[in-house]
Amino acid sequence: MFDGHIALYRSLPKRVKIIEVGPRDGLQSEAGNVPTTTKVDLVNRLARAGFANVESASFVSPKWVPQMADGLAVMRGIERIPGTIYSALTPNMRGYENAREANVDEIVIFSSASEAFAQRNVNGSIAESIERFVPVAKAAKDAGLRLRGGISCCFGCPYQGEVPLSAVQDVVARLADLGCDEIDLADTIGVGTAGQVAFVVENVARQFPLDRLAGHFHDTYGQGLSNILAAMQIGMHIFHSSVAGLGGCPYAKGATGNVATEDILYLMAGLGIETGIDLDAVVQAGDFISQALGKNNAARAGRALLARAH
Amino acid sequence: MFDGHIALYRSLPKRVKIIEVGPRDGLQSEAGNVPTTTKVDLVNRLARAGFANVESASFVSPKWVPQMADGLAVMRGIERIPGTIYSALTPNMRGYENAREANVDEIVIFSSASEAFAQRNVNGSIAESIERFVPVAKAAKDAGLRLRGGISCCFGCPYQGEVPLSAVQDVVARLADLGCDEIDLADTIGVGTAGQVAFVVENVARQFPLDRLAGHFHDTYGQGLSNILAAMQIGMHIFHSSVAGLGGCPYAKGATGNVATEDILYLMAGLGIETGIDLDAVVQAGDFISQALGKNNAARAGRALLARAH
Repeated sequence: MFDGHIALYRSLPKRVKIIEVGPRDGLQSEAGNVPTTTKVDLVNRLARAGFANVESASFVSPKWVPQMADGLAVMRGIERIPGTIYSALTPNMRGYENAREANVDEIVIFSSASEAFAQRNVNGSIAESIERFVPVAKAAKDAGLRLRGGISCCFGCPYQGEVPLSAVQDVVARLADLGCDEIDLADTIGVGTAGQVAFVVENVARQFPLDRLAGHFHDTYGQGLSNILAAMQIGMHIFHSSVAGLGGCPYAKGATGNVATEDILYLMAGLGIETGIDLDAVVQAGDFISQALGKNNAARAGRALLARAH
Repeated sequence: MFDGHIALYRSLPKRVKIIEVGPRDGLQSEAGNVPTTTKVDLVNRLARAGFANVESASFVSPKWVPQMADGLAVMRGIERIPGTIYSALTPNMRGYENAREANVDEIVIFSSASEAFAQRNVNGSIAESIERFVPVAKAAKDAGLRLRGGISCCFGCPYQGEVPLSAVQDVVARLADLGCDEIDLADTIGVGTAGQVAFVVENVARQFPLDRLAGHFHDTYGQGLSNILAAMQIGMHIFHSSVAGLGGCPYAKGATGNVATEDILYLMAGLGIETGIDLDAVVQAGDFISQALGKNNAARAGRALLARAH
């Protein structure tokens, strides 16, 4: 129906890459232990739906994040679809070695744009936390693996509130120096709004190519899709999302977490933007994991499409 | 934090009017009977929060919509805050007489842009349904009341699917002829996406002034806020929303309904757009009605702000 005659929409990206983070970022924030077989099933369903990149595991210490302790088993259990990138979080060299053993395609390192958040969550400054990633980044690049860098709290922090653009840009520069192929700006607590997102994305794009810059938005305040629209209008075309809106917000119990993949895919379909992903298959995967977790499906497009199908 | 340097955001409306439709459109779609005293309390809380317009009742036949049968009692029970417009739906002259008895400030008439929807929901064509409103509109104008016209299914229909722009424009012309002070384009089933919204709003604005054109979006597929952002970028600055996201979707059971007022207000605050409405008071009103109905609060900003307050 949309005939694209409005300049704003004619200039949107023709194709958007969606990185599915539900099996890692999403499940990590869900209460309760998820059986390894369920994780394997979920990753397989998502890879088959057409995602080019599925964040599948986290090789952090099981003392910190026990719900991700079965990363190796998950990676060994899944079907490896050729062309799909299976990525994993690796906080240190020990995690990197485990990720290598699990044969992941992409190593994900991470920092925060908020000094207060870094101090509370990694017991050190931003600079110290990035210093610890130097050997990981070098090893990954030497091994010819893809390297991705995630930056939390780019649009606000639960401890310090506002996060200046210069702090975001400083971390982007450090992660770029480590050789990151892709860097994502995360709104960890979902506080950002459209104008702010446009402002940050436009400015960061002056120092790091938009073609390798991703947006990772949370729907805590319902702003996920409008933030993605705002970022796309600047030219951003890589986004993270979570099937069934898996994940919560540890800083606001009962609040929504990651923006739902189904809602994004519905938007992209309406805008005529290619993703290469089968929305119906994602809706089914979202129904599967919501039922497995015994929780309400947080993807609104998912719920509506499931209701229509019945 | 947002410094407005991006042209797109500098040109957004400085002020947006939000019409709160929760007590009518929202509660009408909720299961179960809501006590009159609860409705009165809700309308009072919303008017005190600063809304210039609260859609408070519906004077339709109690045989059709029994949950709205206490419209007169609601209107008589509420505190009438000077300057606040209390509006009510009136399908015919009998409803109009009741609305007059209840001393409403604004009469709301309605039609559909979808012929299939009109046939199924009002047993007649669009033209016939609007013909029935001729005496209502005349009486309202003669009495010096405000007259508002709502058009359902402007972005898609549960029966016929696509709805052509020309059909929307035809109904806008008919309602304008009846003397409507304000006309709203409703996405009754929430299927519209941002580019389509921009396209429809831009075209309708060529025939009816944007200053009197409103957007009524549903969040069934999660598109509410991105659609509002798209409409604002065209210049639209009147929107309808429902506290706590009250309301559902009769065409997709279990799906989300009206876009939540709290989510919109959070967006406007982030964009620096004035609304004159106290977000905290709306969050409290949303908590009140969610608890009264025994249902989950569907406003994501509402849930997050309530969680943060605890």
